[in-house]
Amino acid sequence: MLESLKQEVYDANMSLPKLGLVTFTWGNVSGIDREKGLFVIKPSGVDYDKMKPSDMVVVNLKGEVVEGDLNPSSDTPTHTYLYNHFPKIGGIVHTHSPWAVSFAAAKLDIPAMNTTHADTFYGDVPAADALTKEEIEEDYEGNTGKTIVKTFNERGIDYEAIPAALVSQHGPFAWGETPAKAVYNAKVLEVVAEEDYHTMQMTMSNSRLPQYLLDKHYYRKHGANAYYGQNNAKSKTHAKHE
Amino acid sequence: MLESLKQEVYDANMSLPKLGLVTFTWGNVSGIDREKGLFVIKPSGVDYDKMKPSDMVVVNLKGEVVEGDLNPSSDTPTHTYLYNHFPKIGGIVHTHSPWAVSFAAAKLDIPAMNTTHADTFYGDVPAADALTKEEIEEDYEGNTGKTIVKTFNERGIDYEAIPAALVSQHGPFAWGETPAKAVYNAKVLEVVAEEDYHTMQMTMSNSRLPQYLLDKHYYRKHGANAYYGQNNAKSKTHAKHE
Amino acid sequence: MLESLKQEVYDANMSLPKLGLVTFTWGNVSGIDREKGLFVIKPSGVDYDKMKPSDMVVVNLKGEVVEGDLNPSSDTPTHTYLYNHFPKIGGIVHTHSPWAVSFAAAKLDIPAMNTTHADTFYGDVPAADALTKEEIEEDYEGNTGKTIVKTFNERGIDYEAIPAALVSQHGPFAWGETPAKAVYNAKVLEVVAEEDYHTMQMTMSNSRLPQYLLDKHYYRKHGANAYYGQNNAKSKTHAKHE
Amino acid sequence: MLESLKQEVYDANMSLPKLGLVTFTWGNVSGIDREKGLFVIKPSGVDYDKMKPSDMVVVNLKGEVVEGDLNPSSDTPTHTYLYNHFPKIGGIVHTHSPWAVSFAAAKLDIPAMNTTHADTFYGDVPAADALTKEEIEEDYEGNTGKTIVKTFNERGIDYEAIPAALVSQHGPFAWGETPAKAVYNAKVLEVVAEEDYHTMQMTMSNSRLPQYLLDKHYYRKHGANAYYGQNNAKSKTHAKHE
Repeated sequence: MLESLKQEVYDANMSLPKLGLVTFTWGNVSGIDREKGLFVIKPSGVDYDKMKPSDMVVVNLKGEVVEGDLNPSSDTPTHTYLYNHFPKIGGIVHTHSPWAVSFAAAKLDIPAMNTTHADTFYGDVPAADALTKEEIEEDYEGNTGKTIVKTFNERGIDYEAIPAALVSQHGPFAWGETPAKAVYNAKVLEVVAEEDYHTMQMTMSNSRLPQYLLDKHYYRKHGANAYYGQNNAKSKTHAKHE
Repeated sequence: MLESLKQEVYDANMSLPKLGLVTFTWGNVSGIDREKGLFVIKPSGVDYDKMKPSDMVVVNLKGEVVEGDLNPSSDTPTHTYLYNHFPKIGGIVHTHSPWAVSFAAAKLDIPAMNTTHADTFYGDVPAADALTKEEIEEDYEGNTGKTIVKTFNERGIDYEAIPAALVSQHGPFAWGETPAKAVYNAKVLEVVAEEDYHTMQMTMSNSRLPQYLLDKHYYRKHGANAYYGQNNAKSKTHAKHE
Repeated sequence: MLESLKQEVYDANMSLPKLGLVTFTWGNVSGIDREKGLFVIKPSGVDYDKMKPSDMVVVNLKGEVVEGDLNPSSDTPTHTYLYNHFPKIGGIVHTHSPWAVSFAAAKLDIPAMNTTHADTFYGDVPAADALTKEEIEEDYEGNTGKTIVKTFNERGIDYEAIPAALVSQHGPFAWGETPAKAVYNAKVLEVVAEEDYHTMQMTMSNSRLPQYLLDKHYYRKHGANAYYGQNNAKSKTHAKHE
Repeated sequence: MLESLKQEVYDANMSLPKLGLVTFTWGNVSGIDREKGLFVIKPSGVDYDKMKPSDMVVVNLKGEVVEGDLNPSSDTPTHTYLYNHFPKIGGIVHTHSPWAVSFAAAKLDIPAMNTTHADTFYGDVPAADALTKEEIEEDYEGNTGKTIVKTFNERGIDYEAIPAALVSQHGPFAWGETPAKAVYNAKVLEVVAEEDYHTMQMTMSNSRLPQYLLDKHYYRKHGANAYYGQNNAKSKTHAKHE
C-alpha cells in the first residue's frame, strides 16, 4: 500500500541526519497521497539506522492508523491538522534543529534579512503563539497544528510562499510540495536562523530586506517568471554561433 | 567478572567521541550492578582507539578497585558518591562538553527554555555550588559528588526527573537507568545548553517554559501515561478497516 | 572546447562543498580564457554529485551562451560584469557561506583584524551598497556586479589586493588569478568573518590592524619580496656545512 | 639525519587538520634534538596531503638550514627564538585556529575560567604585546618570538606551567616536551578559548577560577603528586580481595 510514497517518506526521513537537522530520533517527515486522502509518516522513536521503508505508517485524514505495525510519530495529529488546513502541501517535516529552536524559545520570528532567505521564504518565518495551558492539556499535538494555521490566518501569510513556521517554545515545522521539498525548506530555515542570529548580534539597523529584493529573489526561483535552474525557458540566451 | 556490564560501559564510553561530547580522553562513563554492589568504570587517561572492554575497572561502593590492571578514572570517587546517594541510577557519565562547560564556568543553571529540554529534563539543570578551598583540598573528587547531591537536596530536585547537573567552574555530570541512557542525557544537555545560550543572547523575556508545557513534554516521554515511542499501549488508535 | 578550463572550473566548483562553503547548490565558480574572451561557468541549480565537467557552460563577454546544453548559473551576468571591469582576474566564485552572509545582511565590511586576514586581503573587505529598487528591477544580476565595481572605484580599492567583496543583503563574491585561487580567497573570507565576529563581540577597542602589520603579512605572501612558500628565492639561508 | 625526529614532527603536523586546528597549510610544528642543537620543522606552504616525512627541514639554533631541499616554514625565526629562550621545551606549534585568533585580535588573554583550562594551563594564557612598527620591519618573525618571551618575563609566567601564548593581532603559539604534546596544548587552547568566549558573553561576574582550584586541577595531572592517567603510583587503591 502506497509503497512508492513510503520509499519517498523514508528517504526524506533519512536525509535529516545527513543534513544535520536531527539529534537521535528528534524529527519526522510525512508525505500525502491527496487522491486517496492518506498520508505516510515515520514511526515514533525508531533509530534512523534501524528504520526500513516498510516501517512507515499509513494514516488517514482523521489521524487514524490505516496500516502499519508500529506507532506513528507522536506528532501525527499536528501533521493531520496541517494536511487538512493547508490543502496544497504534499509533505511535512518537524525537527528540533538547534538554531530554529533557539528562535522558537525566544518567541521571535526568523526575519527576512538576506537573499538566502528570500530565495525560499517570501517574508519573515513566523513564530506561532505558544500553546496555552488549556490547549496543551486538551489536545497538545492537534493544537500545535492549530496555532500554526491560526497564526498564518491572523497575519495573512500565504503558506505556499512561506512554507515553514516556528511553534514558540517548541521548534520548527516546514512543508512543501513533496516530502523532499519540505526537508529542503527545513534546512534553509536552519541556515538562515544561524545567519540572522549573527546579523542581529552585530546590528539591527537597516538589516531587514526591502520588499523589492524579497520580490526579486523569491520570484527568481518561484512562479511563472522563474529563471533559476534548468526547468524553465526564460534564462537561456544562446549567442548565434556556427 | 561482570563481562556484560564491562561491554555495556565500554560501548557507552566509545559513543562519547561519536556524539561530539569529548576531546581526547576527557570523559568517563560507569555502570553499576546494584545486586553485587559493584560498578565498572573507564580506566584513567587511556585513548579511545586503544581501549578494550577488558580494560574497564571494577570498583566497589567504597571506591576500592576490585578488579582491573589499570587505574580507574580519577573521577571514581565522584561516581562512588553519586551511586551511594542516588540509589536508583544505573549509569553515570562525566564529560567536558564545551557548551555545558561554558554554563558551568558562568555558574549558571541551564534553564528550561524549550521542549527539547522538557522531553528529558523536568526543569532547570542546576549548577551545583563550586567547591570551597577546604572541600578541594580535603577530598576533591568525593566532594564533587557531594556538592551535586547537596544542591539537589537543598533545592528539592528529583534526581530521576532531572538526571544531570553542572558542577560550577568544572563541567557536566549526567546519569540514567543505564550507562547508555546516561550518555543520551549528557548529549541532550549539551544540545540544550547551546540552544539556551543563543536564546539568552537574543532575549531573556518570557523565554522560560511554563509548568504546564514542562509537564506535557516530560510526561509524553516518561511515566505511566507516556505515549512517545513503541513501548507503550496508549498512542495507537487503529482505524477499523478491512 | 576549452576542455582543460572546464575541468578546472568543475574542480573548483566541487571543492566548495568540501570546504564547507555551500549548502545544496548555492554557489558557482567560473574561469576565463582571456585570449579567447570566453569564460566557463557552472550550470544553474545542478546537484554537485550529478555534475560533470562537460556540463560546464561556455559564455562570451556579452554574457551569451556559446556552448552548453544547460542553463548557465543565473548569476552569469554578475560574472560577466566583473570579468569586463576587473581585467586581471582569471576566476570568480559566488557563495552563500553563512558568516560572510551574516556580515552582508548587516551591511558591514569584514574588517582587517588579524594576520590571517592580512595574509590574503590588504585591508577591509568592503560591503558594497545594496541594490536600489530600480537597479534590482532593471538588471538584477548585472547590477550586482556593478555595485561591487562602483564600491571599489569610489573607495579606491585595488581589486587585486582585496580579491573579494560582500554585496549588502546578499552575500560574498571572491576572485583570483585562477578559479582555484578564487575559491581559496572565498574560504579565507569565511574564516576571517567568523573570527572577526567573535572579536567584535568581545571588544571593538584597538582591534583594527595597523597599516605596518597589514603591509608585513600581505607582502610576506605577495609581490616581489614574498618569502612564504616554495616559489621564491629569498627566504632560504643554508648554513655552510659539509 | 634525525630520521626519527622527522617522523615525529611530520606526525604532529599531520594531526593538525585532524584536530580541526588548521585551514589549508596555516600551521607548523617543529621538534628539537637538544643534544645536537638542531630542530626539525615543516616546510613552508606545502599541502598536508602531499607532505612526506623526508620533506621536513633541519635547522640549527642560529636559524640556518642544515639539511632539506625545501624552504622551512617562514615562521622558523620564531621557533628559533623560542627554543633559545625556553630551554626545556622539545616541540613548538603555531596555528591560526579561529577561536584563539579571535582572542588574539581582541588582545585579550584567554582567562582561566574552568577546569579544562586548569588541567593544562596553570593560569591565564597571555596575549603578548602586538609588535611595533619597528619590530615588524626589523625582524618580524624573530620579534614574534621575542614578544612572547618578553611577556612571560615581565609577567613572571613559568613557560612550562603555561605552555602557550597568543601574539596579539596574530594568533596562538603552543609548546611542550614533545611535538605531540605541543599540539595537544594547542588543541586545549582552542577548546578553552571557545568555552571562555561563551562564558564571557553570559557573565563576567565570578567566573575566574580561584587559585586553589587551579592548583588542584593542574597538579592532578602534573608534577610529583599527579594521579591522573596510568603513569603514576599514587591513585590506585586496590581493595584486599581474594
